[in-house]
Amino acid sequence: MNQKNIYVKNMPLHEAKEKWQGALHKINFSGSAASTEIAVEQALGQITGAPVFAAHSSPAYNAAAMDGIAVHFADLASASDAAPVRLTEKQFSPVNTGNNLPLEFDAVVMIEDVHYVNEHEVELAIPATPWQHVRTIGEDIVATELILPVGHKIRPIDQGAMLATGVTKIVIKTAPQITVIPTGSELIQPGTTPAPGQIIEFNSRILAGYLNDWGAAAKGAAPVTDDKDKLRAAISEAVKNNDIVIMNAGASAGTRDYTSTVLAELGEVIVHGVAIKPGKPVILAIVDNTPVIGLPGYPVSAILTMRLFVHEMIYSYMNMQKPVAAKTKALMSRPIHSSMGQDEFVRITLGQVGDELMATPAGKGAGAVMSLVRADGILTLTAGSEGVGAGEEVEIELLRPLTEIQSTLVAIGSHDNIIDVLANLLHKGSNTIRVSSAHVGSMGGIMAIKRGEAHFAGSHLLDEETGEYNISFIKRFLADIPLQLINLCYRQQGLIVAKGNPHGITGFQDVADGNLSFINRQNGAGTRLLTDKTLKDLSINPTDIGGYDHEEYTHMSVAASIANGSVDCGMGILAAANALKLDFVPVAEERYDLIIPEKFLNDPKISTLLDLICNSPEFKELVNNLGGYNLQDSGKTMYRQ
Amino acid sequence: MNQKNIYVKNMPLHEAKEKWQGALHKINFSGSAASTEIAVEQALGQITGAPVFAAHSSPAYNAAAMDGIAVHFADLASASDAAPVRLTEKQFSPVNTGNNLPLEFDAVVMIEDVHYVNEHEVELAIPATPWQHVRTIGEDIVATELILPVGHKIRPIDQGAMLATGVTKIVIKTAPQITVIPTGSELIQPGTTPAPGQIIEFNSRILAGYLNDWGAAAKGAAPVTDDKDKLRAAISEAVKNNDIVIMNAGASAGTRDYTSTVLAELGEVIVHGVAIKPGKPVILAIVDNTPVIGLPGYPVSAILTMRLFVHEMIYSYMNMQKPVAAKTKALMSRPIHSSMGQDEFVRITLGQVGDELMATPAGKGAGAVMSLVRADGILTLTAGSEGVGAGEEVEIELLRPLTEIQSTLVAIGSHDNIIDVLANLLHKGSNTIRVSSAHVGSMGGIMAIKRGEAHFAGSHLLDEETGEYNISFIKRFLADIPLQLINLCYRQQGLIVAKGNPHGITGFQDVADGNLSFINRQNGAGTRLLTDKTLKDLSINPTDIGGYDHEEYTHMSVAASIANGSVDCGMGILAAANALKLDFVPVAEERYDLIIPEKFLNDPKISTLLDLICNSPEFKELVNNLGGYNLQDSGKTMYRQ
Repeated sequence: MNQKNIYVKNMPLHEAKEKWQGALHKINFSGSAASTEIAVEQALGQITGAPVFAAHSSPAYNAAAMDGIAVHFADLASASDAAPVRLTEKQFSPVNTGNNLPLEFDAVVMIEDVHYVNEHEVELAIPATPWQHVRTIGEDIVATELILPVGHKIRPIDQGAMLATGVTKIVIKTAPQITVIPTGSELIQPGTTPAPGQIIEFNSRILAGYLNDWGAAAKGAAPVTDDKDKLRAAISEAVKNNDIVIMNAGASAGTRDYTSTVLAELGEVIVHGVAIKPGKPVILAIVDNTPVIGLPGYPVSAILTMRLFVHEMIYSYMNMQKPVAAKTKALMSRPIHSSMGQDEFVRITLGQVGDELMATPAGKGAGAVMSLVRADGILTLTAGSEGVGAGEEVEIELLRPLTEIQSTLVAIGSHDNIIDVLANLLHKGSNTIRVSSAHVGSMGGIMAIKRGEAHFAGSHLLDEETGEYNISFIKRFLADIPLQLINLCYRQQGLIVAKGNPHGITGFQDVADGNLSFINRQNGAGTRLLTDKTLKDLSINPTDIGGYDHEEYTHMSVAASIANGSVDCGMGILAAANALKLDFVPVAEERYDLIIPEKFLNDPKISTLLDLICNSPEFKELVNNLGGYNLQDSGKTMYRQ
Repeated sequence: MNQKNIYVKNMPLHEAKEKWQGALHKINFSGSAASTEIAVEQALGQITGAPVFAAHSSPAYNAAAMDGIAVHFADLASASDAAPVRLTEKQFSPVNTGNNLPLEFDAVVMIEDVHYVNEHEVELAIPATPWQHVRTIGEDIVATELILPVGHKIRPIDQGAMLATGVTKIVIKTAPQITVIPTGSELIQPGTTPAPGQIIEFNSRILAGYLNDWGAAAKGAAPVTDDKDKLRAAISEAVKNNDIVIMNAGASAGTRDYTSTVLAELGEVIVHGVAIKPGKPVILAIVDNTPVIGLPGYPVSAILTMRLFVHEMIYSYMNMQKPVAAKTKALMSRPIHSSMGQDEFVRITLGQVGDELMATPAGKGAGAVMSLVRADGILTLTAGSEGVGAGEEVEIELLRPLTEIQSTLVAIGSHDNIIDVLANLLHKGSNTIRVSSAHVGSMGGIMAIKRGEAHFAGSHLLDEETGEYNISFIKRFLADIPLQLINLCYRQQGLIVAKGNPHGITGFQDVADGNLSFINRQNGAGTRLLTDKTLKDLSINPTDIGGYDHEEYTHMSVAASIANGSVDCGMGILAAANALKLDFVPVAEERYDLIIPEKFLNDPKISTLLDLICNSPEFKELVNNLGGYNLQDSGKTMYRQ
């Protein structure tokens, strides 16, 4: 039984930040990075801990900037083609680039302009200007002048400048040592085989990856089980050897309780629970003058919470300002409602759809790791906001360079594995088009086209009346948008059955005759329309199919019901059967088209996509290898308006 | 004697690139990166060598998304505050976040909404919707779906997504192995003490730093002396173990000749000499099917040439496109003349001066390493261009983030070490202002203010007539610009003399009396004006000063002449004497002011600067430690128009 105390607060974000700043101030956290001296050659990427001044000038002497001869410019004042000036041995001296210019000379003539009369005399036909082709002492930098200020991240050229001016050792700031301690009895180390109920721990590595990106020296620690004594020991040890300690709760409720209890025993819990989404249960504590942050268990929550509280701490520790995040303006493609009273951080995908950069929420589950893989940016809805309306301009913090976003094709709609095949071909070799793909079903795709969110939508909507695919739906919902409907493939739909097909199902008739249990898709789904049409064509009464009124919402939920043995079969695509290693009995072929607004047909990204579909032998081969597809009409325009 | 063959061609850049592409094509260089399988945990920052598909779905089962109880949503249809629904033991099951939802249930009620009547019964007052607080199987991603396309750089979240969907090993592309071989008998390894004529070799490390930034696995090799056999052996060995070999010529002419000769013997020289500036003598060769690039000796030339020819090769080797460089539009603050017939790459500093981003050339010597440290971007003048006029819009490839450039104060004018002190204080702790400082003398600074290139200019121009500093020059050259002249300091000018002051000089009288040799500054220099005024005040006739008509152009050239013993003394600032460890005899105090256009006085960067000057005890202490300064009027407005 699970009766637990609900003690997590809901402190406003600004208040939590203020309290946390106060606590960090008390332990003199800001600027507490140690300094250490290292060789300039080892300093690439490090942060200067003190200003760097030139130890000697560069050039350190007047240096020839060309191969040629050193001269006194005044000697050549009268030189011309008609009356070249002849210089004798004392009046010039051969020099190579970089050589010290002999004291008595003040210019260099390039070797190309020198005519040797004999080994000891030269003739010159062009006058020289003072100090021509000479790099004068200190021209680049004078000894004692500033090369790099404090707090500068060292680039290769900076190393070059330091070494060129005689600086071989510099003081750098040491990055904060951070350990990420995963907690939870269910966690085991990667590389071991999980027993039932065990989970391979990888969050600590992901979190350390971000911390290192932000300039810390972070590493994941071994998981700690749900045992107060072990947790206490782990934290006590970690604060001794680290500048920041991160606790990452496991999935079990017990773990999260233990962490805050133990932190309160060992030190002071400054904040527990902030009005943010995701990330509400975050714990901010100080133990032995060391900040300890308890992050939520889900990786997406943990990452977004680290961005809020830990990212800035790394810079503060080094006495630097966090770099300004790259941002962009975009238009919301659909409304987002926000629960007032909490700061919400919404994962966003962006698409340069025509002239507008359109922002679309990228899924919101805290456990949805893929939503953060797919996300192009983060939209912040502050506690006072009720949300954002469709078409409203928003500011998005970017997670990818804008140029990469601008070369992204946005696909929203029904998913088919062929879209993935295309995504790979579009991102291979000389192709640099990224495909951002959201799987929201055929009707979801049509609505995305209507809102201008997507470059194209995959759709397989059967009109039961006409037996035709997609067109009547386009006429109904997208009447005012000029577009083309281009076939991608025909694909097999069929009955997903248990591995080995134990009931020997060959089609719907067997389901009806054998009194087998079926699981249906919800009303309106493309697959439901196909099921109904198939039954009608076979003159089977739906009431003869056991479980016809038992509805599921996705191909995968159907497949899962079969995999766990609760039903015998369900209608779906081959890929869903393959995903759970089930068997598949083909029943009907359905058409899967791409809806592409006319205005994007000249977009080079769409042209490349269509070119692949029509002309790439590799595309055809890869699809044929998948099985269950028919490409006879692939690339053909099925309808245009 | 130095009579060498002039055989370096001047091939147009596009032709050189075409020839080189052709040669690389012949050896199938593009896409020749090997693939290797590694553990996902080790894959951070690597490039996917094959698309990555989900091995299992995420979630892999219908999972509780909250701590609470699993229920069948239909049981709660009638629940309300007035009439809560009571569920008995069989009708619910406690679940924690992440738990598998038992088969018979289809929704989760949060623990906060559950009222336990006793250990076996609960009461609920709110209806549930189907699948509420449940993460359904495959909701995030379905097994077999694409997680990452080929050619994707792996981020921490990508590792998380792979591990969450059962992918533990992936195929990555191996980066090209590159060795950078420094050549030249004058080169020695860092850490050894150079004998006269020896140069510590560091270019190979700088160049390898850039190559690694661009995704290669590059390292510097030991220098090879100017010996054809040794060079031949080094190249033959290097092409066996590397995918690209870089030769970096030393400063001596011989070295460069050997490299191309040896490359022609061992393989084929495709291009030698391209119409680019800098970088003209570049060599592009193929030896044993391996590309070998001979870079110019100067680091700036070498880096810019690598950007042109090698950067793209790294991506091509991995079968990827080079990322689009960040660019910005800016206005040229002054004209640049370009020699027609060659592509020129001009280092540029950028300054957000008011509403305009102003572009100013950042020095052009190929040896000027500091010019590339200071540069914010690169302007390309193509072979057909005669140059760019002042005020013309240009496109600049950025070397720094634009946000960093926008927080930069642009200082152009006479340099004083106090500017460096300020630069450090402006970039320390909570201050994030970068100072871009160009040292072009007082008149150069006044011209920069006139052209709108700088936020402020340091100036110490004495009007011999009035004895006043800067004001008459401002009235003459900046009459139409509202500005303030704000004092930074008074500083000592004096006679720079050899270490230990062997002639016991105490002032100009001693120079005249002792028949000592003097070196003067050029007409118009601030220091020359002060010298003349000082002599006049002392009633010394300039003809009594030996060497008065011997002019030098910088403080450092004056100091260098004294350091090498060619003259006894010269007029200059303490810093120049310190830079060459010479002695200094104070002669006069001069005023050093900052010219700040009125329109920048409200710029927060200028406000911070002025606040430091007026109020920072740390600033005062650091300046006093330098010695030779008087801050009595520091921050005071000396003149306003």
